[in-house]
Amino acid sequence: MTNRSAVLHAPHELTIEDRAVPEPQPGEVLVRVVAVGICGSDVHYFEHGRIGPYVVESPMVIGHEAAGVVVGVGQGVSSDRIGKRVALEPGVPCRNCPTCLSGRYNLCPDVVFFATPPVDGAICEYVTLASAFAHDVPAGLDHEHAAMAEPVSVGIWACRRAGVQAGDRVLVTGAGPIGLLTAQVARAFGATKVTVTDMNAFRVEAAARLGLHAQLAPTPLEGEYDVQVECSGAGAALSTGMTSLARAGRVVLVGMGADEVSINVPLVQGRELTLTGTFRYANTYPLALDLIASGAVDVAPVITHHFDLDHATDAMTLASREPNSLKAIVRVGT
Amino acid sequence: MTNRSAVLHAPHELTIEDRAVPEPQPGEVLVRVVAVGICGSDVHYFEHGRIGPYVVESPMVIGHEAAGVVVGVGQGVSSDRIGKRVALEPGVPCRNCPTCLSGRYNLCPDVVFFATPPVDGAICEYVTLASAFAHDVPAGLDHEHAAMAEPVSVGIWACRRAGVQAGDRVLVTGAGPIGLLTAQVARAFGATKVTVTDMNAFRVEAAARLGLHAQLAPTPLEGEYDVQVECSGAGAALSTGMTSLARAGRVVLVGMGADEVSINVPLVQGRELTLTGTFRYANTYPLALDLIASGAVDVAPVITHHFDLDHATDAMTLASREPNSLKAIVRVGT
Amino acid sequence: MTNRSAVLHAPHELTIEDRAVPEPQPGEVLVRVVAVGICGSDVHYFEHGRIGPYVVESPMVIGHEAAGVVVGVGQGVSSDRIGKRVALEPGVPCRNCPTCLSGRYNLCPDVVFFATPPVDGAICEYVTLASAFAHDVPAGLDHEHAAMAEPVSVGIWACRRAGVQAGDRVLVTGAGPIGLLTAQVARAFGATKVTVTDMNAFRVEAAARLGLHAQLAPTPLEGEYDVQVECSGAGAALSTGMTSLARAGRVVLVGMGADEVSINVPLVQGRELTLTGTFRYANTYPLALDLIASGAVDVAPVITHHFDLDHATDAMTLASREPNSLKAIVRVGT
Amino acid sequence: MTNRSAVLHAPHELTIEDRAVPEPQPGEVLVRVVAVGICGSDVHYFEHGRIGPYVVESPMVIGHEAAGVVVGVGQGVSSDRIGKRVALEPGVPCRNCPTCLSGRYNLCPDVVFFATPPVDGAICEYVTLASAFAHDVPAGLDHEHAAMAEPVSVGIWACRRAGVQAGDRVLVTGAGPIGLLTAQVARAFGATKVTVTDMNAFRVEAAARLGLHAQLAPTPLEGEYDVQVECSGAGAALSTGMTSLARAGRVVLVGMGADEVSINVPLVQGRELTLTGTFRYANTYPLALDLIASGAVDVAPVITHHFDLDHATDAMTLASREPNSLKAIVRVGT
Repeated sequence: MTNRSAVLHAPHELTIEDRAVPEPQPGEVLVRVVAVGICGSDVHYFEHGRIGPYVVESPMVIGHEAAGVVVGVGQGVSSDRIGKRVALEPGVPCRNCPTCLSGRYNLCPDVVFFATPPVDGAICEYVTLASAFAHDVPAGLDHEHAAMAEPVSVGIWACRRAGVQAGDRVLVTGAGPIGLLTAQVARAFGATKVTVTDMNAFRVEAAARLGLHAQLAPTPLEGEYDVQVECSGAGAALSTGMTSLARAGRVVLVGMGADEVSINVPLVQGRELTLTGTFRYANTYPLALDLIASGAVDVAPVITHHFDLDHATDAMTLASREPNSLKAIVRVGT
Repeated sequence: MTNRSAVLHAPHELTIEDRAVPEPQPGEVLVRVVAVGICGSDVHYFEHGRIGPYVVESPMVIGHEAAGVVVGVGQGVSSDRIGKRVALEPGVPCRNCPTCLSGRYNLCPDVVFFATPPVDGAICEYVTLASAFAHDVPAGLDHEHAAMAEPVSVGIWACRRAGVQAGDRVLVTGAGPIGLLTAQVARAFGATKVTVTDMNAFRVEAAARLGLHAQLAPTPLEGEYDVQVECSGAGAALSTGMTSLARAGRVVLVGMGADEVSINVPLVQGRELTLTGTFRYANTYPLALDLIASGAVDVAPVITHHFDLDHATDAMTLASREPNSLKAIVRVGT
Repeated sequence: MTNRSAVLHAPHELTIEDRAVPEPQPGEVLVRVVAVGICGSDVHYFEHGRIGPYVVESPMVIGHEAAGVVVGVGQGVSSDRIGKRVALEPGVPCRNCPTCLSGRYNLCPDVVFFATPPVDGAICEYVTLASAFAHDVPAGLDHEHAAMAEPVSVGIWACRRAGVQAGDRVLVTGAGPIGLLTAQVARAFGATKVTVTDMNAFRVEAAARLGLHAQLAPTPLEGEYDVQVECSGAGAALSTGMTSLARAGRVVLVGMGADEVSINVPLVQGRELTLTGTFRYANTYPLALDLIASGAVDVAPVITHHFDLDHATDAMTLASREPNSLKAIVRVGT
Repeated sequence: MTNRSAVLHAPHELTIEDRAVPEPQPGEVLVRVVAVGICGSDVHYFEHGRIGPYVVESPMVIGHEAAGVVVGVGQGVSSDRIGKRVALEPGVPCRNCPTCLSGRYNLCPDVVFFATPPVDGAICEYVTLASAFAHDVPAGLDHEHAAMAEPVSVGIWACRRAGVQAGDRVLVTGAGPIGLLTAQVARAFGATKVTVTDMNAFRVEAAARLGLHAQLAPTPLEGEYDVQVECSGAGAALSTGMTSLARAGRVVLVGMGADEVSINVPLVQGRELTLTGTFRYANTYPLALDLIASGAVDVAPVITHHFDLDHATDAMTLASREPNSLKAIVRVGT
């Protein structure tokens, strides 16, 4: 048994190495990984070796949007799980602190998250994970679509934090993979108007193909939306979007860009807008898998490129080489 | 019957004039005003003739924190109301738009609010008001304390918007009248730790005398508070305060200062902070009067100066003349 | 101008009479009625002359699910409204009491509701209504579908009170018009599993034709659902349904049957179930019209029979004559 | 080292036996127990050997309201905890199921709870417990008051489930220990009117001594309360209480009595009442300890009797011998 792994040593230095197959600890499962999606954060680590305070100081396996098959179990886990197809929720919290016990486990200070230094990620043949975080995949859903439960979870969490509900008019700024998936999630939550904006025509077209209202040059009207989900990281998208919100509107910051943004206080006060940020997600995977399986969220058009494990580096450089790309998948196994 | 009124003609030009006594329209009461508190916004109109887009273009009676006695009723209002002591909720919304009908009437685009141009205010002998907005005052509460239901309402609304609940640790930045009242409201909501900070020693001492934890030089620790209610309008107070919030913390912008403030995105995202603004209040008056009457919110120490109607101008200039002042009351009647 | 009206004089005595065309009062519109749906409560008044404490003591026009065209306006209403196609929200609250001002106007003690004695209803050529309660109908939606905004509102309110959200598994007991519409609303709210049960095979088939999971003989499993919306009024449906709820499940009583029902306390406590009742609805009409217009809620299959005004009595007796009927519409105009 | 324990063998057969001192497992602390409160459920097991489906089939240590001192730690727990005074949250959930991960851990199907068969309880010299569930006690709070964090938690959870907030008018039916503590919690949550009712004059007086509004013969008026917390288990208290609720009122079932209760459907529907049950509590201990330490909840008057370990049986029979008793404490150590 090999465990060929995509290991990041330094910026732009990703090598495929055979590492030891891990042993599942009590409460864990051993998973043979099949498909892993590439996220902007993976690319950021690949290019810069860090994201803010998180620095890759020793070699680290990358990737955190994974799905595969359970092939072993640790103590206390039923052997019935062996053979099950699972989507891997990448962050395992301590489950004992007040934050975890109150249901906001994404904010656990001791969370262990795939491919966040120094924790290894999932672009490798075998990983172990707490069994409760390896979610059974509905019948008929293939591995790469199951892996998309991770970015779909980002969208679910954003919509929950925004309180998106039936009848809301939702503006999603930024039509990258997260924006395209979040907009579909908003629609599945009952939003009756969902608009996606981007500066990139390819992405706007991708949104339109998903049946979303898509706009290249956003010129929103005052009071046009109830919710903005900001997925671009652009300060201008935030300020323009907030101007378009109705009284009692909500805005959620999902995209990452400049560390400081300016907000207009009379706008926030006069319309009583609510602004919040999201950090990953909690209690989203079963719904994410349901939405993908039912087709309410169509992930297929978001996946534009595939690579095998030996070409993982090409997956990392895709975005910079190919502007008309969205999500890359690394196929680790079959 | 006279209706002597404090009329603002231009910045620093406030005159006492006798105006016609208004007729109560259908659904309205006629109120003989007894006491009116002076708010920072009144002072701002007095000094600058405007607040942002609201410009005093024709002579306007000022003042909006009022209490008095019902002396007449319009069509459809029971004459039982005559003789009742009432606190006047200064903003009467349209009650027909979707915002009103969904309970957020403070955001009604057609609200008519005392002393917001061109609407006349309440420093005068007689005003009319929709009966539902003239709230019965509990027995034993005097007029000037009843008038404080207005700034106490600001505090109640801030605490509601922040979701203050039993066990919360609350930081109130700014120990002016609003800060001092809001901090007491937070305590009445069950907050188990309430800290008030200010740069002014007199105000910090006022907070301490109210039994609040008060600090001159705020050096909050990370994660020390669940909620910040920003009542100073100072950008530094906001940014320092937000740093002190625990994960899932909430911050409410009550104070007015610069139009643009900078917020730290990784902080908002990493801790999933929620930021919101407040605009006046809705459905707060009965609770405000209850809290004042029960002593849960002690308004007496916040009232530091009294003036009669003929000296209303002195009430307007108090803050600039006397740094160790808090709230001024204009006694219009008896 | 005539105002031919369906007037209930006594049980089973419904006559068509020409009444005076009403004058729109300030804030009101005059509406030429086109289509009115018949509700179980109309039939109950027709058969028994009362519903609980509400007794028809003097002749009363019946019907409250109406749509039509604005043909006149009262003082203070823009004449732009004339010619607009509108759905009529049948209950106009006082808009001044604390219940109204806090957004729960359906609970207003002074609400005036079509065809609730002694208030006349809408099966007549002309009615007046507060303008804010005459909701503009989206282009392309015909009058009888617009009239269905009333029962769809019942479903929206039930789903809101139940807190139905994306991912919920919802059991709707009772497949009459309200159940069939509520189930579709739950689906539009993002419920990922919606089951409708009834004892009547025709109704179960109607549910199935709407793409809902439908069951004749409900044998729910413990923990199978998150929400039950009880639309049958049958005590057995309630108790069986509650047994099927998961921990933290919610149940909403919409249907009316016996005045007393028995609930199992250890079940409610051990699973922390939440039970609530609904009384009409508030702030639902715009969403109802949106859901009907978009097809998210398909009202057409729920309308099984049509009558003209002269045959209004036949509409009232339909349910007792024709077991395989759902909703009757009385076409008053064109 | 001995571990003298109060072991229930059969109804009315409680013996003091020396059992092995348990070893703290990974993540656990070993606690030397000092004080344990006696709850109605302990008495019920003592008298009947069962509570509903929970049957004492083999000898079981009783008691679950405990406080003591940490004297040992298992693997992974900091030795800094040794010497700490702690209140023991008696139920340790699995922390891995969806219910736990979403913050409702009291509903975990695999919870292990002190003195719920077959799990041993805490009237013994030494117990082990997951470290996260042994809560540090504020300085100055003695052990028996710390042990009261358990029944105070019941009250906190009831008030949270009822959504008690500042300004609410709360009716607590039943003035036993739970009712007396819950009423104080409601007051600490900002309820502006709190009434406690009981049929027993001694208990009504106990409520009055705590500064609560207390009534022997409840004759509540319609609309007098916003919330009822039912702590008596009496069906009549529930039905009478519900009649007194205002529109949109909430009722929480805390007390246990008959398995079936009858509720009035038109009342629940017409006023849109919300009824829910509670099962233990979640995320309450830190607040409970805070409220006790601050005096917001005065537990002292609720503790009427003390027993040493050798007289544990007397503690169990107290309620039947002495009608004017409230809470008994068994002092296990010092």
